[in-house]
Amino acid sequence: MRSPGEVVHKVNFTTPRNFTTSFKSDLKETFFPDDPFRQFKNEPPLRKAKKAAQYFFPVFEWLPKYNFRLFRYDLLSGITIASLAIPQGISYAKLANIPSIIGLYSSFVPPLVYTIFGSSKDLAVGTVAAASLLLSSIVGGVVSPKDDPTLYLHLIFTATFFTGVFQAALGLFRLGILVDFLSHSTITGFMGGTATIICLQQLKGMFGLTHFTSKTDVVSVMRAVFSQRHEWRWESAVVGLCFLVFLLFTRFLKKKKEKLFWVAAIAPMVTVVVGCVFAYLVHAEKHGIQIVGDLSKGLNPLSIKALNFDSRYLPSTIKAGIITGILALAEGIAVGRSFAIVKNDQVDGNKEMIAFGMMNIVGSFTSCYLTTGPFSKSAVNYNAGCKTAMSNVVMSVCLMLTLLFLAPLFKFTPLVALSAIIMSAMLGLIEYEKAYHFFKVDKFDFCICMAAFLGVIFISMDIGLLLSVGISVLRALLYVARPSTSKLGNLPSSTMYVDVEQYPSATEIQGILILQLGSPIYFANCTYIRERISRWVEDEKETLNSSSNDLDHLILDLGGVTSIDMTGIEMLSEVYRNMERRGIKMAIVNPRREVLEKLTLSRFIDSIGKDSVFLSIKEATDACHFLLNESKQKN
Amino acid sequence: MRSPGEVVHKVNFTTPRNFTTSFKSDLKETFFPDDPFRQFKNEPPLRKAKKAAQYFFPVFEWLPKYNFRLFRYDLLSGITIASLAIPQGISYAKLANIPSIIGLYSSFVPPLVYTIFGSSKDLAVGTVAAASLLLSSIVGGVVSPKDDPTLYLHLIFTATFFTGVFQAALGLFRLGILVDFLSHSTITGFMGGTATIICLQQLKGMFGLTHFTSKTDVVSVMRAVFSQRHEWRWESAVVGLCFLVFLLFTRFLKKKKEKLFWVAAIAPMVTVVVGCVFAYLVHAEKHGIQIVGDLSKGLNPLSIKALNFDSRYLPSTIKAGIITGILALAEGIAVGRSFAIVKNDQVDGNKEMIAFGMMNIVGSFTSCYLTTGPFSKSAVNYNAGCKTAMSNVVMSVCLMLTLLFLAPLFKFTPLVALSAIIMSAMLGLIEYEKAYHFFKVDKFDFCICMAAFLGVIFISMDIGLLLSVGISVLRALLYVARPSTSKLGNLPSSTMYVDVEQYPSATEIQGILILQLGSPIYFANCTYIRERISRWVEDEKETLNSSSNDLDHLILDLGGVTSIDMTGIEMLSEVYRNMERRGIKMAIVNPRREVLEKLTLSRFIDSIGKDSVFLSIKEATDACHFLLNESKQKN
Repeated sequence: MRSPGEVVHKVNFTTPRNFTTSFKSDLKETFFPDDPFRQFKNEPPLRKAKKAAQYFFPVFEWLPKYNFRLFRYDLLSGITIASLAIPQGISYAKLANIPSIIGLYSSFVPPLVYTIFGSSKDLAVGTVAAASLLLSSIVGGVVSPKDDPTLYLHLIFTATFFTGVFQAALGLFRLGILVDFLSHSTITGFMGGTATIICLQQLKGMFGLTHFTSKTDVVSVMRAVFSQRHEWRWESAVVGLCFLVFLLFTRFLKKKKEKLFWVAAIAPMVTVVVGCVFAYLVHAEKHGIQIVGDLSKGLNPLSIKALNFDSRYLPSTIKAGIITGILALAEGIAVGRSFAIVKNDQVDGNKEMIAFGMMNIVGSFTSCYLTTGPFSKSAVNYNAGCKTAMSNVVMSVCLMLTLLFLAPLFKFTPLVALSAIIMSAMLGLIEYEKAYHFFKVDKFDFCICMAAFLGVIFISMDIGLLLSVGISVLRALLYVARPSTSKLGNLPSSTMYVDVEQYPSATEIQGILILQLGSPIYFANCTYIRERISRWVEDEKETLNSSSNDLDHLILDLGGVTSIDMTGIEMLSEVYRNMERRGIKMAIVNPRREVLEKLTLSRFIDSIGKDSVFLSIKEATDACHFLLNESKQKN
Repeated sequence: MRSPGEVVHKVNFTTPRNFTTSFKSDLKETFFPDDPFRQFKNEPPLRKAKKAAQYFFPVFEWLPKYNFRLFRYDLLSGITIASLAIPQGISYAKLANIPSIIGLYSSFVPPLVYTIFGSSKDLAVGTVAAASLLLSSIVGGVVSPKDDPTLYLHLIFTATFFTGVFQAALGLFRLGILVDFLSHSTITGFMGGTATIICLQQLKGMFGLTHFTSKTDVVSVMRAVFSQRHEWRWESAVVGLCFLVFLLFTRFLKKKKEKLFWVAAIAPMVTVVVGCVFAYLVHAEKHGIQIVGDLSKGLNPLSIKALNFDSRYLPSTIKAGIITGILALAEGIAVGRSFAIVKNDQVDGNKEMIAFGMMNIVGSFTSCYLTTGPFSKSAVNYNAGCKTAMSNVVMSVCLMLTLLFLAPLFKFTPLVALSAIIMSAMLGLIEYEKAYHFFKVDKFDFCICMAAFLGVIFISMDIGLLLSVGISVLRALLYVARPSTSKLGNLPSSTMYVDVEQYPSATEIQGILILQLGSPIYFANCTYIRERISRWVEDEKETLNSSSNDLDHLILDLGGVTSIDMTGIEMLSEVYRNMERRGIKMAIVNPRREVLEKLTLSRFIDSIGKDSVFLSIKEATDACHFLLNESKQKN
């Protein structure tokens, strides 16, 4: 049976680790998968302190090495993203129903804070469309931005404050795991849905409507647009269309020639400037083309006293803070990671969360609203050749200058130009090709994606997101509740045992049933696994009966089982007793350490006997063969 | 490298199954894990019809083969469980705050219904303490059983009706999977907690109190008991203590001698009869020992018109119906299965659900309240030697006779006797040894158990249950979010690759890092797996650097990965690109069919190349060695 030189390896039955050891290692894997303390090992105290400072304030890591050569790159990219920040700031503030100047404020303070705490080199700080709309849809549900704009604005600051606290807390408690529950499918669907409703919202600006709905679903928005056809202004629509065509053309150009990315990057600024000049020259507001209106000079006023913790509004502001916080994190962290991978760099998710949190807390004290690392802006930053977070400082300085001297010039910006900017940005976010890819590869992922998309456009943004996450979690539970088991067979002249359905050439062994269990085994799938094993056994007995043989051995390959709980152990014992009663011997193969520890502690190993635990399927089948031959000889 | 006789096996890259095939097989595994249609295969139509009738009405399966010999056993066991059903029926009805006679009604109709639909041979139908108390605590929250007893009773019937509909629906839609989410730990904790608060509730009967709280938590109950010391009656307490000691002694006897189980089985009946005679002789009610009071003769009146679907009460009745429904199912199915395993029999969970559902629907039409298969009664039934569900019919007939002729005799039953019966039954349900076993083997299971226990005794039954299930699900998600990965090494002179931490004798191969991934890979654990892989790679590079070698190959063993989703595939591609950039070649080993299908569809296999996919780790390392040698020779 056994080749002469071969060594028999035994299963390692050493005493289980004690609780503290295994608990510590579990905690570490759960909350510190990136092992941030590794670098502190074996260092003298002074260096440890320095490393700790660098760990908490990444700015100390790169600033000492900073030089003029790097600054040239950062200056250029900083100016480029500033030219994007001004129109986007004004537009997205409009989307959140707050004064346009808040959008400019939000690109001045937060980037400075991020420079100190942030660990990504390519991320450009700024406001985002989806979170802006989400904020206004939740806070707008309790206070109308038209009836009481001051209270509304204060609630937006409060929500931003909660976002910051929530994000920083997630980072401090190392709960980045929460962000993991937004799958690619959810994000694709949510982004697509949000982009769609944001585009539709822009019809207000495009047609120059003065009345509009505060709801975001497609039915309400379309009704609001078409029920007010008397308010439509053709002048506005024509100007808007021109801008939109121009912007889409620059995007097209960028796609064709990667080098011309800067054309697309400054296009929004060009649109705003051209729009201002045009509006000033033709007195646009007299022709039904609305303009932004007064923008006061001066830097961010303090808003710390404006935070409103009134219990009437608290549930809404907290809800808005948490949902937008998760969303903003998901986008910001994904962006940071993507570019870091390209540059072969590391971005620490938990550190980023703290950075985003600090940025929003400080922001909410200084008249800024929610900011994160938007994809579009960061991509421009990266393409413009930024080297460090200094580009954010450059952008911040540009915005400071704008706020101090140029702000009043932007008062002529036509709203329709902003609408065109938002629309063209949003059209790039509807990734129908990706959805089709999901459809082709994994129908369930497609469902999750569509749930987010349809939920967002037909119900509301938060419901759409929750719906999609809910389905994802349900799927996760189903995965665990119905793990696949498969029957293994031996590949001819090898010691390999593989799924007989996948490899039809694998041969089964008379009288021995080998099953591979999927993992992990615990309460939610115990009943299923037991039923499935008994079905395999029934099937095997049936086929064997027709050839007048009998099933003598059941081998369970536990190599793939990563963990087991009490219900799972009881299920295995039950299967064992059941098999024993039917005269079938059961053996288990290659249990992993954690599993073996629990099986030993619960005395399962004692009950089936240590000689029924094998390290490889081959050794188990050899032992079975030996037993079979012995019993045949006896007969 | 390779022994001469060895055959090289290739990975099977056949075209993926189409969507319908894999979807069908997934659906089957999710909803029909027991494959109920197997028996209908290859049968003529007439036999098929017969088999279908037998499938839906298991009574057709065993009744034709029924004979007098079997009946003798069933008669004996039927009478035994009837003697248990009468005192339990009266006691638990008191627990649910409904007239005692309802408890007797509930042991007459439902057992008959179960006989037709049920597939277990040992299960004895009856009322249960936990569900009775839960019903009264939920329905009692909207209508007080004292102020409006008729409405309260009608709502209890309505809740029972909803229970039935819910259970039958679960069975029809084959959603037995829901019951799987009650783990052994949850049930142990919940049962222990419920038993504790039920025992405390009995202090009311023991001390002969007339006023009591409707809350179930331990603080309210103890306050209610001790704030009314002026109502305490010593006569009641003495009588109760005597009964309790007697009952506990019979339980002790049963534990010592399995054969004397019948003593424990008839002890409650003896308690009731002795109590009745005693109360009748000494005019107990004049000495502060309360009695049950009038019990009218006659069979169950119809109650179908009493069902109350008023929208004011609907939320409570539906909630009560669903929660007690799940609880009752969990107990009933577990009981049926446990005894079936002992007898080497099969019990179909989904069929049982339909049987329970029908039993409760019909019950709610005929003045019965919630019934299931209680553990204590079924154990007695099994011990008394029952052979088929006929023992339920015998019990039912006994109860019919009791209702027709004997009911008025039970009016003298002292409440304190019932309290003693309930207490002694409940004391057996507090499995502190099991909780200690959990503590020893799996601390997390112990937490789940204690959450249920403490939640039930300090907050409320439904909150305790939900809390515990919530923690279990969270754990399930954590399991999936943090799958274990391990580094593999080669066991000397073998082709086995095992965890190097578990088997320190396994040797690593210079320049090749072999990682085993836990399963499944998808959105919730992608980030973790990516970070973990990069940490393994960093660690490996560090150790290799000190020996001035370099890491050239990364081999991922996917054998344990049962499924993968889009986010997971993107993660793998990212890891691949990342490794490529660092000059490390990546190979994957033994992907399972479903995983391979998705990897092929998403073009991941094309991007890493089919020659980087191996069937075994040995072949992968052989290929790596070949490449390494080649490059060395070039240098």
